[in-house]
Amino acid sequence: MGTHRVGILTGGGDAPGLNAVLRAFVKRAVGQLRWDVIGIEDSFNGLLERPFRVVDMTLKSCSGLLARGGTVLGTTNRGDPFSFGPDKRDRTAEIVDAMADLDLEGLVVIGGDGTQKIGLRMMRERGVKVVGVPKTIDNDLSATDTTFGFHSAVSVATEALDRLHTTAESHDRVMLLEVMGRDAGHIALHAGLAGGADCIVIPEIPYDVDRICRKIDKRRGVGRMFTLIVVAEGATPRQGAADAGVEHGAKGRILPGGASMALARALAERREVDVRVTVLGHLQRGGSPIPYDRILATRLGVGAVDLVDQERWGEITVLRDGHVIGVPIEDAVRVYRRVDPAGEMVRTARAVGIEFGG
Amino acid sequence: MGTHRVGILTGGGDAPGLNAVLRAFVKRAVGQLRWDVIGIEDSFNGLLERPFRVVDMTLKSCSGLLARGGTVLGTTNRGDPFSFGPDKRDRTAEIVDAMADLDLEGLVVIGGDGTQKIGLRMMRERGVKVVGVPKTIDNDLSATDTTFGFHSAVSVATEALDRLHTTAESHDRVMLLEVMGRDAGHIALHAGLAGGADCIVIPEIPYDVDRICRKIDKRRGVGRMFTLIVVAEGATPRQGAADAGVEHGAKGRILPGGASMALARALAERREVDVRVTVLGHLQRGGSPIPYDRILATRLGVGAVDLVDQERWGEITVLRDGHVIGVPIEDAVRVYRRVDPAGEMVRTARAVGIEFGG
Amino acid sequence: MGTHRVGILTGGGDAPGLNAVLRAFVKRAVGQLRWDVIGIEDSFNGLLERPFRVVDMTLKSCSGLLARGGTVLGTTNRGDPFSFGPDKRDRTAEIVDAMADLDLEGLVVIGGDGTQKIGLRMMRERGVKVVGVPKTIDNDLSATDTTFGFHSAVSVATEALDRLHTTAESHDRVMLLEVMGRDAGHIALHAGLAGGADCIVIPEIPYDVDRICRKIDKRRGVGRMFTLIVVAEGATPRQGAADAGVEHGAKGRILPGGASMALARALAERREVDVRVTVLGHLQRGGSPIPYDRILATRLGVGAVDLVDQERWGEITVLRDGHVIGVPIEDAVRVYRRVDPAGEMVRTARAVGIEFGG
Amino acid sequence: MGTHRVGILTGGGDAPGLNAVLRAFVKRAVGQLRWDVIGIEDSFNGLLERPFRVVDMTLKSCSGLLARGGTVLGTTNRGDPFSFGPDKRDRTAEIVDAMADLDLEGLVVIGGDGTQKIGLRMMRERGVKVVGVPKTIDNDLSATDTTFGFHSAVSVATEALDRLHTTAESHDRVMLLEVMGRDAGHIALHAGLAGGADCIVIPEIPYDVDRICRKIDKRRGVGRMFTLIVVAEGATPRQGAADAGVEHGAKGRILPGGASMALARALAERREVDVRVTVLGHLQRGGSPIPYDRILATRLGVGAVDLVDQERWGEITVLRDGHVIGVPIEDAVRVYRRVDPAGEMVRTARAVGIEFGG
Repeated sequence: MGTHRVGILTGGGDAPGLNAVLRAFVKRAVGQLRWDVIGIEDSFNGLLERPFRVVDMTLKSCSGLLARGGTVLGTTNRGDPFSFGPDKRDRTAEIVDAMADLDLEGLVVIGGDGTQKIGLRMMRERGVKVVGVPKTIDNDLSATDTTFGFHSAVSVATEALDRLHTTAESHDRVMLLEVMGRDAGHIALHAGLAGGADCIVIPEIPYDVDRICRKIDKRRGVGRMFTLIVVAEGATPRQGAADAGVEHGAKGRILPGGASMALARALAERREVDVRVTVLGHLQRGGSPIPYDRILATRLGVGAVDLVDQERWGEITVLRDGHVIGVPIEDAVRVYRRVDPAGEMVRTARAVGIEFGG
Repeated sequence: MGTHRVGILTGGGDAPGLNAVLRAFVKRAVGQLRWDVIGIEDSFNGLLERPFRVVDMTLKSCSGLLARGGTVLGTTNRGDPFSFGPDKRDRTAEIVDAMADLDLEGLVVIGGDGTQKIGLRMMRERGVKVVGVPKTIDNDLSATDTTFGFHSAVSVATEALDRLHTTAESHDRVMLLEVMGRDAGHIALHAGLAGGADCIVIPEIPYDVDRICRKIDKRRGVGRMFTLIVVAEGATPRQGAADAGVEHGAKGRILPGGASMALARALAERREVDVRVTVLGHLQRGGSPIPYDRILATRLGVGAVDLVDQERWGEITVLRDGHVIGVPIEDAVRVYRRVDPAGEMVRTARAVGIEFGG
Repeated sequence: MGTHRVGILTGGGDAPGLNAVLRAFVKRAVGQLRWDVIGIEDSFNGLLERPFRVVDMTLKSCSGLLARGGTVLGTTNRGDPFSFGPDKRDRTAEIVDAMADLDLEGLVVIGGDGTQKIGLRMMRERGVKVVGVPKTIDNDLSATDTTFGFHSAVSVATEALDRLHTTAESHDRVMLLEVMGRDAGHIALHAGLAGGADCIVIPEIPYDVDRICRKIDKRRGVGRMFTLIVVAEGATPRQGAADAGVEHGAKGRILPGGASMALARALAERREVDVRVTVLGHLQRGGSPIPYDRILATRLGVGAVDLVDQERWGEITVLRDGHVIGVPIEDAVRVYRRVDPAGEMVRTARAVGIEFGG
Repeated sequence: MGTHRVGILTGGGDAPGLNAVLRAFVKRAVGQLRWDVIGIEDSFNGLLERPFRVVDMTLKSCSGLLARGGTVLGTTNRGDPFSFGPDKRDRTAEIVDAMADLDLEGLVVIGGDGTQKIGLRMMRERGVKVVGVPKTIDNDLSATDTTFGFHSAVSVATEALDRLHTTAESHDRVMLLEVMGRDAGHIALHAGLAGGADCIVIPEIPYDVDRICRKIDKRRGVGRMFTLIVVAEGATPRQGAADAGVEHGAKGRILPGGASMALARALAERREVDVRVTVLGHLQRGGSPIPYDRILATRLGVGAVDLVDQERWGEITVLRDGHVIGVPIEDAVRVYRRVDPAGEMVRTARAVGIEFGG
């Protein structure tokens, strides 16, 4: 095994387990293989400022990181280096220069789809050597069985459902819990199954509000006066988002709370029920990763060292059928995994009486 | 000790520990003293319907209640029996009749200020024997050192702050967490202290948004790019709620999220910061009570049996200097305890650098 | 879909998720398919007593079961019905009679290896129709990717490591945590990885105590004065259990605490260190299942309904490459999965510096 | 307010909240009052070695400490400086010299009874200025209403009872949980109340094993086949510890597990029951303090700054009727608080059916 000197960065939204990837990478690369590892702050941005915002990653700097949420490197994204800022300037040459100045052989890019695409383009167009580690709390990357952070987010959402359950049944209420998931309803589906939701509405199955009303009616008919509904933030009614009045933010993005507020209003118009909305928001990203995610993150971090060690630049570590392997980054970022409305998980949910509204 | 046959009911919003009070009352009264205890569903409403919605409270019916959130008796409030429904009808005679039909000697009323006042009036004006157990998750009852549910709510809010902390520092953000507290900021103050908040805004100290901005500036000046702010739902800016645009609901009540949204907007107008709002809402009420509340609820439940046993009708169990005693209900419901802006808790918070905005 | 009338039972040690399997089975079979489901108490024993100890499984009886640990049916094993009690009597005819009396078409057997083997033999030798659901908290069944309860146990053990970590580093101690795992070290391996253990000793890798001593020395050499060691209860030193003084119980079974006490003594003989032992024991089995296990249990419960519905008697539901399928019970109970000392998980652990002692 | 330069140290066993005291002291003293604060490692020992093992306490060094268990200063006790080591040498002059060399005006001593007594003697006999902060996880200090760490320990023990509950009822078992409490049973009493124990045995009420057997019988008589017993480590049978076979360690100290094993054996001799023992041990000390303890620790830390600021040397911060005040150290260390067998807490426990065995 030769020696290497690489940079490592975290991009995109934070996910529980990012620090555990950093720790595993450093424990292996620095602690055992005696490489130099330089942490780059705030995604690629740490290389766009002078002095560089970088930090020497030592074993000591990794103490306590396994159980710590967030990322010590920061992940504030101030823009795509290929099209930076309001004037959309290409600043990638600065990154190439910075890497030369820092004597970095390559970069380990821990990030989601957007960050990986930038990494891939840096490699193809600027000749920067890159190894990737996938991060998406939504678990919507088809290249890998699971991504770290997902089960932690499901855990937070399930705990919230457990809490809402007791207060809902004390007050005869319809409780809506909005969870993350703009394009994919995995968190809603898993948390709904684990938290005993009565209805789950997800982007993949546009909902008919009348079906949900009938579910409420049916429950009331057997003396169950409360109903728990998990709503993915990207859920939309069958007739289209516009009709249901989902509010869109300044940049056309779905606002947190928009999907659940739209459904709440639709329910309140149709039934005399006390509807309450809770939006989990950032609580899903924060906090210590659950053991599953700590282990997965550790495996991926070690896997990334292996890829660098074998000079398999352009590859990304993924979990495939239970094993950590490397695949080309371009294959990994191409295809999303959405919830299969006809798949086993949805069938299981329906089998225990969960209504999807469609 | 004689024998008794009493009804027991829970009124107002649910709080962690209600079930533990029920369990302790029944374990003592039924399990040891062989009394009859009848649970009345949904506050006084269970006596306003025929057939009555009541349940025989046996030892078996209390299995598992100690650790269970909410209230198995339900607490949906459909109105004050002295002024019931849209036509404000006095239906208290029905309650008196119901008690006679059920052969109930008196009522044990577990509830907040509103419910206790109804109980007190039932006693004075209708001759109904009543013993009270105080419930207010906001801890704003000056008659008692602490109320059950309060520390559980603080625990949920603190855990939320712990979660927000990691994601806030990963992204250089200002994070607002809105917690319960319309008139009193105890939850915000305790959670803010326990969760390491940078600012706490509470109803008792109207805030000057510029002071909060300066706190954010000061932190940024020493490289702390994120700021955590706990907002009580009743917090208002110094110049008055109207100016800051706090939205009021249909009944003039403060909307969940109103206080934090108003502050978020004010901050975003004054500083270039990424502000995010999380509203804890019903998550604070739900879930298993923490040990402190399970114990306090148990002590109050046993104390209520003692009051009935000693025929001290008209009294309510409270915790005073660490001891459970009985005091007249009318003394207990008269005086609220708000956060003392000059008290030790606020001084402690200021001493560790927490900004109150006023 | 036809209708069915089946019995359901839980056998062997309890595991978080047993109740979730029961709930899912009943929600599907009773709630949707209108079958009759009879719960049999305490494994097969409920059919060996008159009156039978059985309970009609209704939707109502499943309320709250998803999040509840243990099994409402009980699982006390008073013996193998083929060889029951001190006189090893064959009482299986009584079970056949009981099933006829109760008009049960077949049995759904949720249990571990021993219980499944009894079920299989009942089918082959007594003609009883059986469908299985696997249960082993140790995750040592090679027929299925994961078993419910395993990740919950790992979670409890990881949380214990997190706790021991702070107290170990405050006092310069060697802390041993003994976890379940007589024949397979999966819990120790996963918890050790997730909890940042320094050493993991498992049955699959007999340990050389001197290697562990050297790990302690190495840590002290870099100022890390504490060491955390996870010990599977079946771990043995390289030279054989007898030499290291592992105590065996009355029935020749490894005593809880035996493996860790043996290692603790061996360390204390060789180094001047303050060694403390914690045995997790039953804490690993109890409590609410984590979301992962609630979902897996739900999928297996629904899968068992499918097997009965398709009259695939003699099969057991397993998770294979992420999908729930049915396989012959005899295939499932034959092969154990032990930790592969050369596999990716162990290599990952070694890569982050974890010492296995061999 | 003048300026000061003081040392701070933590002594005795660790308790959740120690770091929170350190943080609050530094936030106030350094962050606001611009004092110099020097952390001394491993109780007084950091001053007995050259070079001194001390650390400059800055705001940065306190980041993250609020929620972190243990103590970053360490607390390994290598002996009383008045009688140090095997030859019982008086090394206090070295401490006086070290303080002069480090230019320390006085010491803030966070510790239990033993550590406070050393501090007091240092003041009286060596003229060292001392301010104290009390620490005892057992809550047995009568000078203060509550000590930090106590409620966190109760929380860990209660959670353990919750876990044991489900597994106990699944298997018809008698489960013993041994918790801390050599001389005082506060943890056992509180956890037993909060965790729904059936029996609580504590040092203050020597137990009659037959009473506990009768409680088991009584429960079995009403179909409750399991019994949960909380045992304080210092609990002894009525007839004396020797008879019941409680093992004593090398130094005559009660061994962890000794009390529960003795009771387990006594039960197994008298009844045909499946008895299992769990010893919580160090799990009770570790992990993040619960909000209550974080707040109390913060108040005491700020209170200690006030005492130094007012030059009230020789005083210790305590919580008295809900207020943090200073009292003479000698008054605080003199009197222990044990559980009052006739007090309200024990009466409450008996009122809900808990058996104390005496």
